[in-house]
Amino acid sequence: MTSPRARRPTPLSGFPELLPSQRAAEQLVLDTLRETFELHGFCSVETRSVEPLDQLLRKGETSNEVYVLRRLHAADEDADAGLGLHFDLTVPLARYVLENAGRLEFPFRRYQIQRCWRGERPQEGRFREFTQADIDIIGQGELDVDADVEVTAVMAEALSRLPLPPVTLQVNNRKLIEGFYRGIGASDPAAVIRTVDKLDKTSADSVRRALVDDVGLDEAKADKCLALASIAGTDPSFADEVRALGVSHPLLDEGLDALARAVDGAAHANSARFQVVADLSIARGLDYYTGTVFEGRTEEHGTLSICAGGRYDALASDGRTTYPGVGISLGVTRLLAPLLARGLVDADRSVPSCVLVALPDDDTRAECREVARRLRARGVPTEVSPEAAKYGKQIRFAERRGIPYVWFPGAEGAGHQVKDIRSGNQGDADPDAWLPAVADLRPRIRTTRSEERT
Amino acid sequence: MTSPRARRPTPLSGFPELLPSQRAAEQLVLDTLRETFELHGFCSVETRSVEPLDQLLRKGETSNEVYVLRRLHAADEDADAGLGLHFDLTVPLARYVLENAGRLEFPFRRYQIQRCWRGERPQEGRFREFTQADIDIIGQGELDVDADVEVTAVMAEALSRLPLPPVTLQVNNRKLIEGFYRGIGASDPAAVIRTVDKLDKTSADSVRRALVDDVGLDEAKADKCLALASIAGTDPSFADEVRALGVSHPLLDEGLDALARAVDGAAHANSARFQVVADLSIARGLDYYTGTVFEGRTEEHGTLSICAGGRYDALASDGRTTYPGVGISLGVTRLLAPLLARGLVDADRSVPSCVLVALPDDDTRAECREVARRLRARGVPTEVSPEAAKYGKQIRFAERRGIPYVWFPGAEGAGHQVKDIRSGNQGDADPDAWLPAVADLRPRIRTTRSEERT
Repeated sequence: MTSPRARRPTPLSGFPELLPSQRAAEQLVLDTLRETFELHGFCSVETRSVEPLDQLLRKGETSNEVYVLRRLHAADEDADAGLGLHFDLTVPLARYVLENAGRLEFPFRRYQIQRCWRGERPQEGRFREFTQADIDIIGQGELDVDADVEVTAVMAEALSRLPLPPVTLQVNNRKLIEGFYRGIGASDPAAVIRTVDKLDKTSADSVRRALVDDVGLDEAKADKCLALASIAGTDPSFADEVRALGVSHPLLDEGLDALARAVDGAAHANSARFQVVADLSIARGLDYYTGTVFEGRTEEHGTLSICAGGRYDALASDGRTTYPGVGISLGVTRLLAPLLARGLVDADRSVPSCVLVALPDDDTRAECREVARRLRARGVPTEVSPEAAKYGKQIRFAERRGIPYVWFPGAEGAGHQVKDIRSGNQGDADPDAWLPAVADLRPRIRTTRSEERT
Repeated sequence: MTSPRARRPTPLSGFPELLPSQRAAEQLVLDTLRETFELHGFCSVETRSVEPLDQLLRKGETSNEVYVLRRLHAADEDADAGLGLHFDLTVPLARYVLENAGRLEFPFRRYQIQRCWRGERPQEGRFREFTQADIDIIGQGELDVDADVEVTAVMAEALSRLPLPPVTLQVNNRKLIEGFYRGIGASDPAAVIRTVDKLDKTSADSVRRALVDDVGLDEAKADKCLALASIAGTDPSFADEVRALGVSHPLLDEGLDALARAVDGAAHANSARFQVVADLSIARGLDYYTGTVFEGRTEEHGTLSICAGGRYDALASDGRTTYPGVGISLGVTRLLAPLLARGLVDADRSVPSCVLVALPDDDTRAECREVARRLRARGVPTEVSPEAAKYGKQIRFAERRGIPYVWFPGAEGAGHQVKDIRSGNQGDADPDAWLPAVADLRPRIRTTRSEERT
């Protein structure tokens, strides 16, 4: 740093990277997600990172966020022209389903954990490159509402297993809302939805005024809309509160039933770390979703949702067959990056190694490698010390990396010993039999509550 | 397909994608790689997908392969200008090490499994988007030759564990070759290297002529160069063959020792599926590597190497500190994509599910979900049948996906039964106690030898 030639690269805004212990924590989160999804029988899919621009631009509103590719020395138009990096995993899924429909089994239940790119201006919680974890169930022609119940339950279970700040998964249903508004006689339910959606930005009074002045409801109906939006609950009794408003419509009944089943089906995952809530104020997304709608939040992330999704009646169509789908997308980077950056989440070591085999002298390296080989053969991640320094120095080498055990190979005739460098306990050990505590085998996530840091 | 409006997307050349069972096979390969690397204490690193163009273009020869990013509606120069997708994992590693040097522990042992992009013209074995799995050991200032031995051993072990066509890992050493050429009195060892490198394209005779006519060696020296290049062996006796050529030079001794140790250190991984070989004809890469050099091949992939790497004395430098490194990169897509495409490798099921819980009728769905929950609680991937069709239809549903077991929930009072649909065996089972054979818990790779297919 003192040399005038010294040159250290600097990070690129919006393209987060992790240090090894942070990456270990991210891996533990990704492993938990994958394990949960696979326990429920969701298969893994990865799509290519690029899509034709016309696919990416079908939703006009994202057109300015797409990264377009160009070969540096492309002289003319070639096959790459018109390719962009995908900005989510839903557009690629729809294309993948159409492209492979004849070779997939429906209902098609897949998870996809992959990076996405958006050319957004980087800001708190918004990244240009980020990882998402999506689950979706896609039907061919039709898809039962049980699929909505299932994705709710699976994502609830995945979130409940993450050793992270408590997450609330808010669920609502487009049919419930639209049926209610139709039931009170609103002629333009979409206008009501857009107006009620402003509740988080403005006061209930001004929303009520807009419902009367702009949408044309009378005062009593406007009050009912506000009453509906105020209903939230963790058990099926929310349905009684809705019915107590005295509105009836077939769509309302259908939506109420679907929402009650979704919340009930995910209730087994409720804990101190996770809660599923029917929240009838969740309006974002009701415009393009057609049934269930999800939003996940934590206190640490404030108003930014960390997961979102819902039901599309036509995720994809080839003009002959329509593929309805329901899915939910977890923003892994959005969830983790701020927690890692603030030190609220980390792993307890920066290497997978559970054991460091100390090197008594340079002539015993082969012997030390053999000890390591035997430990690994029984599943114990092990590395050999890179140099035959004094044991104190080798122990500090392990400490700096968070490796819990140091192994001292026995000199000729003498036995091996292993030391837990956290407790200082040391004892005889056989490289063909010794095992660490199961909890020490892999890195673990270490969490700090934000109030403890301030 | 009959409707004029029917529209099915087509694949993009050079951007391979996998069907679910193929992806399951790829996952099993990636899991084996990760597990092996972690057992040896290598930490995971992922870098962002983009690097500044000036970093990517430091090696002039790749300049026409880089994909440059542009925001679709970028009005003017912004922070994204001058970013390209990385074409390997070595350039990002060098940058990551310099950027984070103060926060990493050295020797820094990392693995990285990530996609790369090259704007090459797609052809057999060459992709525009592909996955690589790299391991490297980076020192700060210095790095012992033991690191070369270690990366050889770790990649050897990883390759030997893959249930794929047999792999040969050829190892050579730049110092050995250069020392030999210096020892016979060649004034320009690099010219000899370049000339001998043509052995795989032309005859030994014409290489001999070029060594005499163009490089200026006498006939006897030219013959010694060819004799050296013909040496290959799986055990340390290759060193005796080299010494029998009667050439001596300190660099030669150093290189011989390093190569013998590398081959010996990886020999424990030798099997019917894997062999490490000292091969003194391996010349590609000797130009930029400074010690050990690797190339991995299989018969299925012909002349295309499926892994490559070696030792750099200066992987990175900030002008004050130099970071030497040794690493080896496995082309996961290059290895797998042709095997998957030709049906030589696949997984035995397209979903992770080990059990399908059959649905007797729509009223028992909650009960069936509870059975599934209990099985999952003990680690058995389970899905519930999407519809209460006839049992024969539900069994075919499982068959098409390769799910080995179908669970029949007991009617009130009656017990549960589980059927292995491969053998037809069916028996009583308790959802809180039953476990499948361990081998049935996860999908497995199924391989066919190419001769069996023809």
